[in-house]
Amino acid sequence: MAGNIEARLQELGIELPTAATPAANYVPFHISKNQLFISGQLPLIAGGPDFKGKVGTDIDVETAAKAAKACAINILAQAKSALGELDRIEQCLKLGGFVNSTPDFADHPEVVNGASNFLVEVLGDKGRHTRFAVGAGSLPRGVAVEIDALFAIQ
Amino acid sequence: MAGNIEARLQELGIELPTAATPAANYVPFHISKNQLFISGQLPLIAGGPDFKGKVGTDIDVETAAKAAKACAINILAQAKSALGELDRIEQCLKLGGFVNSTPDFADHPEVVNGASNFLVEVLGDKGRHTRFAVGAGSLPRGVAVEIDALFAIQ
Amino acid sequence: MAGNIEARLQELGIELPTAATPAANYVPFHISKNQLFISGQLPLIAGGPDFKGKVGTDIDVETAAKAAKACAINILAQAKSALGELDRIEQCLKLGGFVNSTPDFADHPEVVNGASNFLVEVLGDKGRHTRFAVGAGSLPRGVAVEIDALFAIQ
Repeated sequence: MAGNIEARLQELGIELPTAATPAANYVPFHISKNQLFISGQLPLIAGGPDFKGKVGTDIDVETAAKAAKACAINILAQAKSALGELDRIEQCLKLGGFVNSTPDFADHPEVVNGASNFLVEVLGDKGRHTRFAVGAGSLPRGVAVEIDALFAIQ
Repeated sequence: MAGNIEARLQELGIELPTAATPAANYVPFHISKNQLFISGQLPLIAGGPDFKGKVGTDIDVETAAKAAKACAINILAQAKSALGELDRIEQCLKLGGFVNSTPDFADHPEVVNGASNFLVEVLGDKGRHTRFAVGAGSLPRGVAVEIDALFAIQ
Repeated sequence: MAGNIEARLQELGIELPTAATPAANYVPFHISKNQLFISGQLPLIAGGPDFKGKVGTDIDVETAAKAAKACAINILAQAKSALGELDRIEQCLKLGGFVNSTPDFADHPEVVNGASNFLVEVLGDKGRHTRFAVGAGSLPRGVAVEIDALFAIQ
Protein backbone atom coordinates (compact mmCIF):
# COMPACT_ATOMS: atom_id res chain seq x y z
CA MET A 1 0.00 0.00 0.00
CA ALA A 2 1.42 3.37 -1.02
CA GLY A 3 1.83 5.84 1.84
CA ASN A 4 0.17 9.20 2.42
CA ILE A 5 2.90 11.24 0.82
CA GLU A 6 2.90 9.14 -2.32
CA ALA A 7 -0.86 9.48 -2.50
CA ARG A 8 -0.37 13.24 -2.26
CA LEU A 9 2.18 13.15 -5.09
CA GLN A 10 -0.31 11.24 -7.22
CA GLU A 11 -3.02 13.82 -6.42
CA LEU A 12 -0.62 16.51 -7.64
CA GLY A 13 0.06 14.51 -10.79
CA ILE A 14 3.74 14.16 -9.99
CA GLU A 15 5.59 10.97 -10.80
CA LEU A 16 8.98 10.69 -9.12
CA PRO A 17 11.76 9.98 -11.62
CA THR A 18 14.21 7.15 -11.08
CA ALA A 19 16.77 8.44 -8.58
CA ALA A 20 19.99 9.35 -10.39
CA THR A 21 23.09 7.33 -9.56
CA PRO A 22 26.27 9.39 -9.13
CA ALA A 23 28.88 8.59 -11.75
CA ALA A 24 31.67 9.12 -9.24
CA ASN A 25 32.92 8.06 -5.82
CA TYR A 26 30.14 9.65 -3.87
CA VAL A 27 26.65 8.57 -2.91
CA PRO A 28 23.27 10.22 -3.43
CA PHE A 29 22.26 9.86 0.23
CA HIS A 30 23.37 8.76 3.68
CA ILE A 31 21.28 7.85 6.70
CA SER A 32 22.98 8.52 10.02
CA LYS A 33 20.89 7.98 13.12
CA ASN A 34 17.73 10.04 12.52
CA GLN A 35 19.20 12.20 9.75
CA LEU A 36 18.98 11.69 5.99
CA PHE A 37 21.58 13.62 3.97
CA ILE A 38 20.91 14.11 0.25
CA SER A 39 23.59 15.17 -2.24
CA GLY A 40 23.15 18.34 -4.27
CA GLN A 41 20.52 17.64 -6.93
CA LEU A 42 20.46 19.16 -10.41
CA PRO A 43 17.22 20.10 -12.22
CA LEU A 44 17.67 17.40 -14.83
CA ILE A 45 14.76 14.98 -15.24
CA ALA A 46 14.57 12.58 -18.20
CA GLY A 47 12.03 13.91 -20.67
CA GLY A 48 11.85 17.25 -18.85
CA PRO A 49 13.02 20.69 -19.94
CA ASP A 50 16.69 21.59 -20.08
CA PHE A 51 17.20 24.10 -17.22
CA LYS A 52 20.61 25.35 -18.29
CA GLY A 53 21.92 28.91 -18.38
CA LYS A 54 22.45 31.96 -16.21
CA VAL A 55 19.52 33.24 -14.21
CA GLY A 56 19.18 36.96 -14.93
CA THR A 57 20.09 36.70 -18.60
CA ASP A 58 19.40 33.30 -20.23
CA ILE A 59 16.69 32.28 -17.78
CA ASP A 60 14.06 34.38 -15.97
CA VAL A 61 13.01 34.03 -12.33
CA GLU A 62 9.82 32.13 -13.13
CA THR A 63 11.66 29.51 -15.18
CA ALA A 64 14.42 29.27 -12.58
CA ALA A 65 11.78 28.59 -9.91
CA LYS A 66 10.64 25.65 -12.05
CA ALA A 67 14.25 24.46 -12.12
CA ALA A 68 14.32 24.67 -8.31
CA LYS A 69 11.13 22.57 -8.22
CA ALA A 70 12.81 19.99 -10.48
CA CYS A 71 15.72 19.83 -7.99
CA ALA A 72 13.18 19.24 -5.19
CA ILE A 73 11.49 16.47 -7.18
CA ASN A 74 14.89 14.80 -7.55
CA ILE A 75 15.47 15.26 -3.79
CA LEU A 76 12.22 13.40 -3.07
CA ALA A 77 13.18 10.70 -5.59
CA GLN A 78 16.43 10.19 -3.64
CA ALA A 79 14.54 10.22 -0.33
CA LYS A 80 12.18 7.53 -1.65
CA SER A 81 15.17 5.49 -2.79
CA ALA A 82 16.83 5.92 0.65
CA LEU A 83 13.78 5.32 2.85
CA GLY A 84 11.62 2.98 0.79
CA GLU A 85 8.63 4.84 2.16
CA LEU A 86 8.38 8.66 2.07
CA ASP A 87 6.11 8.63 5.14
CA ARG A 88 9.25 8.02 7.20
CA ILE A 89 10.10 11.71 6.67
CA GLU A 90 9.63 13.54 9.96
CA GLN A 91 10.82 16.98 8.86
CA CYS A 92 12.78 18.62 6.08
CA LEU A 93 15.40 20.35 8.24
CA LYS A 94 17.43 22.27 5.67
CA LEU A 95 17.86 23.09 1.99
CA GLY A 96 21.05 24.56 0.55
CA GLY A 97 20.06 26.52 -2.56
CA PHE A 98 22.60 27.62 -5.18
CA VAL A 99 21.45 29.79 -8.10
CA ASN A 100 23.70 30.10 -11.18
CA SER A 101 23.20 33.80 -11.70
CA THR A 102 24.67 37.00 -13.05
CA PRO A 103 26.76 39.10 -10.61
CA ASP A 104 23.97 41.64 -10.01
CA PHE A 105 21.12 39.13 -9.58
CA ALA A 106 19.14 39.69 -6.37
CA ASP A 107 16.01 37.50 -6.51
CA HIS A 108 17.45 34.22 -5.20
CA PRO A 109 14.63 33.79 -2.66
CA GLU A 110 12.00 33.84 -5.41
CA VAL A 111 13.96 31.19 -7.32
CA VAL A 112 14.46 28.80 -4.40
CA ASN A 113 10.79 29.26 -3.47
CA GLY A 114 10.09 26.92 -6.38
CA ALA A 115 11.58 24.12 -4.26
CA SER A 116 10.23 25.35 -0.93
CA ASN A 117 6.66 25.69 -2.17
CA PHE A 118 6.76 22.25 -3.75
CA LEU A 119 8.01 20.55 -0.59
CA VAL A 120 5.29 22.18 1.52
CA GLU A 121 2.69 21.30 -1.12
CA VAL A 122 3.69 17.64 -0.89
CA LEU A 123 4.79 17.22 2.74
CA GLY A 124 2.71 19.87 4.49
CA ASP A 125 4.33 21.25 7.66
CA LYS A 126 6.93 18.47 7.46
CA GLY A 127 8.14 20.18 4.30
CA ARG A 128 8.90 23.52 6.00
CA HIS A 129 12.67 23.85 6.25
CA THR A 130 15.47 26.23 7.06
CA ARG A 131 17.49 27.20 4.04
CA PHE A 132 20.10 29.39 2.50
CA ALA A 133 19.65 30.81 -1.00
CA VAL A 134 22.81 32.18 -2.59
CA GLY A 135 24.33 32.91 -5.97
CA ALA A 136 26.84 30.46 -7.37
CA GLY A 137 29.44 31.76 -9.81
CA SER A 138 28.74 28.68 -11.96
CA LEU A 139 27.15 25.24 -11.58
CA PRO A 140 27.78 21.68 -12.87
CA ARG A 141 26.73 21.12 -16.51
CA GLY A 142 25.69 24.80 -16.62
CA VAL A 143 22.39 24.16 -14.83
CA ALA A 144 20.45 27.08 -13.35
CA VAL A 145 19.97 25.70 -9.82
CA GLU A 146 21.48 23.09 -7.48
CA ILE A 147 19.92 22.17 -4.12
CA ASP A 148 20.98 19.77 -1.37
CA ALA A 149 18.87 18.66 1.59
CA LEU A 150 18.82 17.33 5.12
CA PHE A 151 15.81 15.52 6.61
CA ALA A 152 14.95 14.24 10.06
CA ILE A 153 13.48 10.74 9.68
CA GLN A 154 11.79 8.02 11.67
CA MET B 1 15.38 37.10 35.06
CA ALA B 2 17.46 37.56 31.94
CA GLY B 3 20.20 34.98 31.43
CA ASN B 4 23.96 35.37 31.33
CA ILE B 5 24.21 35.76 27.60
CA GLU B 6 21.58 38.45 27.50
CA ALA B 7 23.38 40.27 30.32
CA ARG B 8 26.51 40.07 28.19
CA LEU B 9 24.67 41.51 25.18
CA GLN B 10 23.46 44.39 27.36
CA GLU B 11 27.03 44.99 28.58
CA LEU B 12 28.11 45.23 24.92
CA GLY B 13 25.26 47.67 24.24
CA ILE B 14 23.64 45.33 21.73
CA GLU B 15 19.91 45.04 21.48
CA LEU B 16 18.69 42.07 19.48
CA PRO B 17 16.30 43.08 16.70
CA THR B 18 12.94 41.36 16.27
CA ALA B 19 13.66 38.09 14.49
CA ALA B 20 12.68 38.40 10.82
CA THR B 21 9.85 36.19 9.57
CA PRO B 22 10.44 34.56 6.17
CA ALA B 23 8.00 35.75 3.53
CA ALA B 24 7.96 32.32 1.92
CA ASN B 25 7.41 28.64 2.63
CA TYR B 26 10.45 28.17 4.79
CA VAL B 27 11.17 28.74 8.46
CA PRO B 28 13.87 30.77 10.20
CA PHE B 29 14.89 27.87 12.48
CA HIS B 30 14.35 24.22 13.33
CA ILE B 31 15.17 22.35 16.50
CA SER B 32 15.93 18.66 15.96
CA LYS B 33 17.11 16.73 19.02
CA ASN B 34 20.04 18.76 20.35
CA GLN B 35 20.62 20.76 17.17
CA LEU B 36 19.32 24.21 16.25
CA PHE B 37 19.42 25.03 12.52
CA ILE B 38 19.17 28.70 11.54
CA SER B 39 18.37 29.86 8.00
CA GLY B 40 20.81 32.07 6.11
CA GLN B 41 20.60 35.55 7.63
CA LEU B 42 21.08 38.80 5.73
CA PRO B 43 22.77 41.88 7.25
CA LEU B 44 19.54 43.88 7.28
CA ILE B 45 18.53 45.36 10.64
CA ALA B 46 15.75 47.95 10.89
CA GLY B 47 17.32 51.37 11.43
CA GLY B 48 20.77 49.99 10.62
CA PRO B 49 23.04 50.68 7.63
CA ASP B 50 22.28 49.28 4.20
CA PHE B 51 25.00 46.66 3.60
CA LYS B 52 24.41 46.22 -0.12
CA GLY B 53 26.96 45.96 -2.90
CA LYS B 54 29.98 43.96 -4.05
CA VAL B 55 32.81 43.49 -1.60
CA GLY B 56 36.01 44.51 -3.35
CA THR B 57 34.50 47.43 -5.26
CA ASP B 58 31.38 48.98 -3.65
CA ILE B 59 32.23 47.86 -0.12
CA ASP B 60 35.61 47.49 1.62
CA VAL B 61 36.65 44.63 3.91
CA GLU B 62 36.10 46.62 7.12
CA THR B 63 32.53 47.52 6.17
CA ALA B 64 31.86 43.97 4.97
CA ALA B 65 33.02 42.66 8.37
CA LYS B 66 30.36 44.90 9.94
CA ALA B 67 27.83 43.35 7.59
CA ALA B 68 28.95 39.90 8.77
CA LYS B 69 28.45 41.06 12.37
CA ALA B 70 24.93 42.21 11.47
CA CYS B 71 24.23 38.71 10.08
CA ALA B 72 25.46 37.23 13.38
CA ILE B 73 23.22 39.59 15.38
CA ASN B 74 20.28 38.35 13.32
CA ILE B 75 21.39 34.75 13.94
CA LEU B 76 21.28 35.38 17.70
CA ALA B 77 17.88 37.07 17.33
CA GLN B 78 16.60 33.90 15.65
CA ALA B 79 18.24 31.72 18.32
CA LYS B 80 16.53 33.76 21.04
CA SER B 81 13.22 33.37 19.22
CA ALA B 82 13.79 29.60 18.89
CA LEU B 83 15.08 28.89 22.39
CA GLY B 84 13.40 31.53 24.53
CA GLU B 85 16.62 31.70 26.51
CA LEU B 86 20.04 32.11 24.87
CA ASP B 87 21.72 30.32 27.77
CA ARG B 88 20.41 27.07 26.29
CA ILE B 89 23.16 27.41 23.64
CA GLU B 90 25.80 24.77 24.30
CA GLN B 91 28.03 25.44 21.31
CA CYS B 92 27.95 27.20 17.97
CA LEU B 93 28.94 24.24 15.78
CA LYS B 94 29.13 25.80 12.32
CA LEU B 95 28.75 29.00 10.30
CA GLY B 96 28.35 29.01 6.53
CA GLY B 97 29.66 32.37 5.29
CA PHE B 98 28.92 33.70 1.79
CA VAL B 99 30.56 36.95 0.65
CA ASN B 100 29.13 38.77 -2.39
CA SER B 101 32.43 39.70 -3.95
CA THR B 102 34.29 40.46 -7.14
CA PRO B 103 35.88 37.49 -8.97
CA ASP B 104 39.41 38.31 -7.73
CA PHE B 105 38.49 38.98 -4.10
CA ALA B 106 40.62 36.97 -1.63
CA ASP B 107 39.94 38.31 1.89
CA HIS B 108 36.80 36.32 2.76
CA PRO B 109 38.25 35.21 6.13
CA GLU B 110 38.68 38.82 7.26
CA VAL B 111 35.06 39.54 6.27
CA VAL B 112 33.52 36.55 8.03
CA ASN B 113 35.66 37.32 11.10
CA GLY B 114 33.15 40.11 11.77
CA ALA B 115 30.61 37.40 12.65
CA SER B 116 33.11 35.02 14.30
CA ASN B 117 34.56 37.70 16.59
CA PHE B 118 31.10 38.89 17.60
CA LEU B 119 29.91 35.38 18.53
CA VAL B 120 32.99 34.76 20.68
CA GLU B 121 32.62 38.20 22.28
CA VAL B 122 29.05 37.34 23.30
CA LEU B 123 29.15 33.58 23.89
CA GLY B 124 32.80 33.05 24.91
CA ASP B 125 34.14 29.59 24.05
CA LYS B 126 30.59 28.48 23.23
CA GLY B 127 30.78 30.91 20.32
CA ARG B 128 33.82 29.24 18.70
CA HIS B 129 32.61 27.41 15.61
CA THR B 130 33.76 25.63 12.51
CA ARG B 131 33.01 27.55 9.35
CA PHE B 132 33.45 27.95 5.65
CA ALA B 133 34.00 31.37 4.11
CA VAL B 134 33.49 31.53 0.34
CA GLY B 135 32.65 33.99 -2.41
CA ALA B 136 29.10 34.02 -3.74
CA GLY B 137 28.56 35.18 -7.32
CA SER B 138 25.61 37.22 -6.03
CA LEU B 139 23.34 37.37 -2.97
CA PRO B 140 19.64 38.04 -2.23
CA ARG B 141 18.66 41.72 -2.39
CA GLY B 142 22.27 42.51 -3.37
CA VAL B 143 23.54 42.28 0.22
CA ALA B 144 27.27 41.95 0.91
CA VAL B 145 27.15 38.89 3.20
CA GLU B 146 24.82 35.97 4.06
CA ILE B 147 25.53 33.56 6.94
CA ASP B 148 23.68 30.48 8.20
CA ALA B 149 24.35 28.67 11.48
CA LEU B 150 24.09 25.40 13.39
CA PHE B 151 24.13 25.25 17.20
CA ALA B 152 24.25 22.42 19.73
CA ILE B 153 21.69 23.20 22.43
CA GLN B 154 20.53 21.93 25.81
CA MET C 1 50.38 1.00 17.21
CA ALA C 2 49.17 3.00 14.22
CA GLY C 3 45.65 2.17 13.04
CA ASN C 4 44.42 0.65 9.80
CA ILE C 5 43.71 3.94 8.10
CA GLU C 6 47.15 5.30 8.89
CA ALA C 7 48.69 2.11 7.55
CA ARG C 8 46.69 2.66 4.37
CA LEU C 9 47.95 6.26 4.11
CA GLN C 10 51.51 4.99 4.47
CA GLU C 11 50.87 2.40 1.73
CA LEU C 12 49.72 5.23 -0.52
CA GLY C 13 52.84 7.24 0.37
CA ILE C 14 50.83 10.05 1.90
CA GLU C 15 52.06 11.86 4.96
CA LEU C 16 49.44 13.99 6.66
CA PRO C 17 50.62 17.59 7.12
CA THR C 18 50.39 19.32 10.49
CA ALA C 19 46.77 20.43 10.87
CA ALA C 20 46.52 24.17 10.22
CA THR C 21 45.43 26.37 13.12
CA PRO C 22 42.90 29.07 12.23
CA ALA C 23 44.28 32.58 12.67
CA ALA C 24 40.87 33.85 13.78
CA ASN C 25 38.06 33.22 16.25
CA TYR C 26 36.95 29.95 14.80
CA VAL C 27 38.09 26.37 15.23
CA PRO C 28 39.20 23.75 12.69
CA PHE C 29 36.81 21.10 14.07
CA HIS C 30 34.06 20.35 16.55
CA ILE C 31 32.88 17.01 17.89
CA SER C 32 29.22 16.94 18.88
CA LYS C 33 27.82 13.57 19.92
CA ASN C 34 28.71 11.22 17.03
CA GLN C 35 29.43 13.98 14.51
CA LEU C 36 32.74 15.56 13.59
CA PHE C 37 32.47 18.93 11.81
CA ILE C 38 35.53 20.16 9.90
CA SER C 39 35.99 23.75 8.75
CA GLY C 40 36.43 24.56 5.06
CA GLN C 41 39.96 23.48 4.09
CA LEU C 42 42.12 25.18 1.47
CA PRO C 43 44.51 23.26 -0.83
CA LEU C 44 47.59 24.74 0.81
CA ILE C 45 50.15 22.25 2.11
CA ALA C 46 53.63 23.37 3.18
CA GLY C 47 56.10 22.41 0.47
CA GLY C 48 53.28 21.59 -1.94
CA PRO C 49 52.18 23.34 -5.13
CA ASP C 50 50.40 26.67 -5.05
CA PHE C 51 46.84 25.89 -6.20
CA LYS C 52 45.75 29.46 -6.81
CA GLY C 53 43.75 30.87 -9.73
CA LYS C 54 40.49 30.47 -11.58
CA VAL C 55 39.53 27.03 -12.78
CA GLY C 56 38.65 27.30 -16.47
CA THR C 57 41.35 29.84 -17.31
CA ASP C 58 44.41 29.82 -14.98
CA ILE C 59 43.97 26.19 -13.90
CA ASP C 60 42.69 23.16 -15.82
CA VAL C 61 40.36 20.47 -14.48
CA GLU C 62 43.12 17.95 -13.86
CA THR C 63 45.14 20.38 -11.76
CA ALA C 64 42.02 21.54 -9.94
CA ALA C 65 41.24 17.90 -9.06
CA LYS C 66 44.70 17.75 -7.45
CA ALA C 67 43.78 20.87 -5.49
CA ALA C 68 40.61 19.13 -4.31
CA LYS C 69 42.74 16.16 -3.21
CA ALA C 70 44.98 18.55 -1.24
CA CYS C 71 41.84 19.90 0.51
CA ALA C 72 40.88 16.31 1.38
CA ILE C 73 44.38 15.61 2.75
CA ASN C 74 43.97 18.65 5.00
CA ILE C 75 40.53 17.39 6.04
CA LEU C 76 42.08 14.08 7.15
CA ALA C 77 44.86 15.98 8.95
CA GLN C 78 42.18 17.86 10.91
CA ALA C 79 40.28 14.62 11.57
CA LYS C 80 43.47 13.02 12.93
CA SER C 81 44.03 16.05 15.14
CA ALA C 82 40.41 15.88 16.37
CA LEU C 83 40.15 12.13 16.91
CA GLY C 84 43.70 11.08 17.73
CA GLU C 85 43.02 7.92 15.77
CA LEU C 86 41.55 7.97 12.25
CA ASP C 87 40.03 4.51 12.77
CA ARG C 88 37.34 6.24 14.86
CA ILE C 89 35.83 7.44 11.56
CA GLU C 90 32.59 5.56 10.93
CA GLN C 91 31.52 7.35 7.76
CA CYS C 92 32.23 10.50 5.79
CA LEU C 93 28.68 11.87 5.66
CA LYS C 94 29.11 14.99 3.54
CA LEU C 95 31.53 17.17 1.62
CA GLY C 96 30.76 20.75 0.60
CA GLY C 97 32.83 21.51 -2.50
CA PHE C 98 33.41 25.05 -3.77
CA VAL C 99 35.30 25.57 -7.04
CA ASN C 100 36.71 29.05 -7.83
CA SER C 101 35.76 29.09 -11.48
CA THR C 102 34.88 31.20 -14.45
CA PRO C 103 31.14 31.98 -14.96
CA ASP C 104 30.72 29.41 -17.75
CA PHE C 105 32.62 26.57 -16.06
CA ALA C 106 30.60 23.32 -15.94
CA ASP C 107 32.94 20.51 -14.82
CA HIS C 108 32.70 20.95 -11.02
CA PRO C 109 32.01 17.23 -10.48
CA GLU C 110 35.29 16.25 -12.16
CA VAL C 111 37.15 18.73 -9.94
CA VAL C 112 35.61 17.62 -6.64
CA ASN C 113 36.18 13.98 -7.66
CA GLY C 114 39.82 14.63 -6.74
CA ALA C 115 38.71 14.75 -3.09
CA SER C 116 36.04 12.05 -3.38
CA ASN C 117 38.36 9.53 -5.03
CA PHE C 118 41.07 10.17 -2.46
CA LEU C 119 38.73 9.65 0.50
CA VAL C 120 37.47 6.34 -0.92
CA GLU C 121 41.05 5.28 -1.71
CA VAL C 122 42.02 5.83 1.94
CA LEU C 123 38.82 5.04 3.85
CA GLY C 124 37.13 2.51 1.56
CA ASP C 125 33.33 2.51 1.83
CA LYS C 126 33.61 4.71 4.92
CA GLY C 127 34.91 7.40 2.58
CA ARG C 128 31.80 7.43 0.37
CA HIS C 129 29.91 10.65 1.12
CA THR C 130 27.09 12.84 -0.04
CA ARG C 131 28.28 16.13 -1.46
CA PHE C 132 27.50 19.28 -3.30
CA ALA C 133 29.88 20.65 -5.92
CA VAL C 134 29.28 24.27 -6.91
CA GLY C 135 31.07 27.26 -8.38
CA ALA C 136 32.22 29.99 -6.00
CA GLY C 137 32.55 33.51 -7.37
CA SER C 138 35.88 33.74 -5.54
CA LEU C 139 37.71 31.96 -2.70
CA PRO C 140 40.02 32.92 0.20
CA ARG C 141 43.61 33.72 -0.84
CA GLY C 142 42.57 33.09 -4.45
CA VAL C 143 42.74 29.29 -4.10
CA ALA C 144 41.10 27.06 -6.70
CA VAL C 145 39.05 24.86 -4.33
CA GLU C 146 37.67 24.90 -0.76
CA ILE C 147 36.01 21.86 0.83
CA ASP C 148 34.39 21.33 4.23
CA ALA C 149 33.35 17.98 5.72
CA LEU C 150 31.10 16.18 8.17
CA PHE C 151 31.91 12.71 9.55
CA ALA C 152 30.03 10.22 11.69
CA ILE C 153 32.45 8.92 14.33
CA GLN C 154 32.67 6.30 17.06
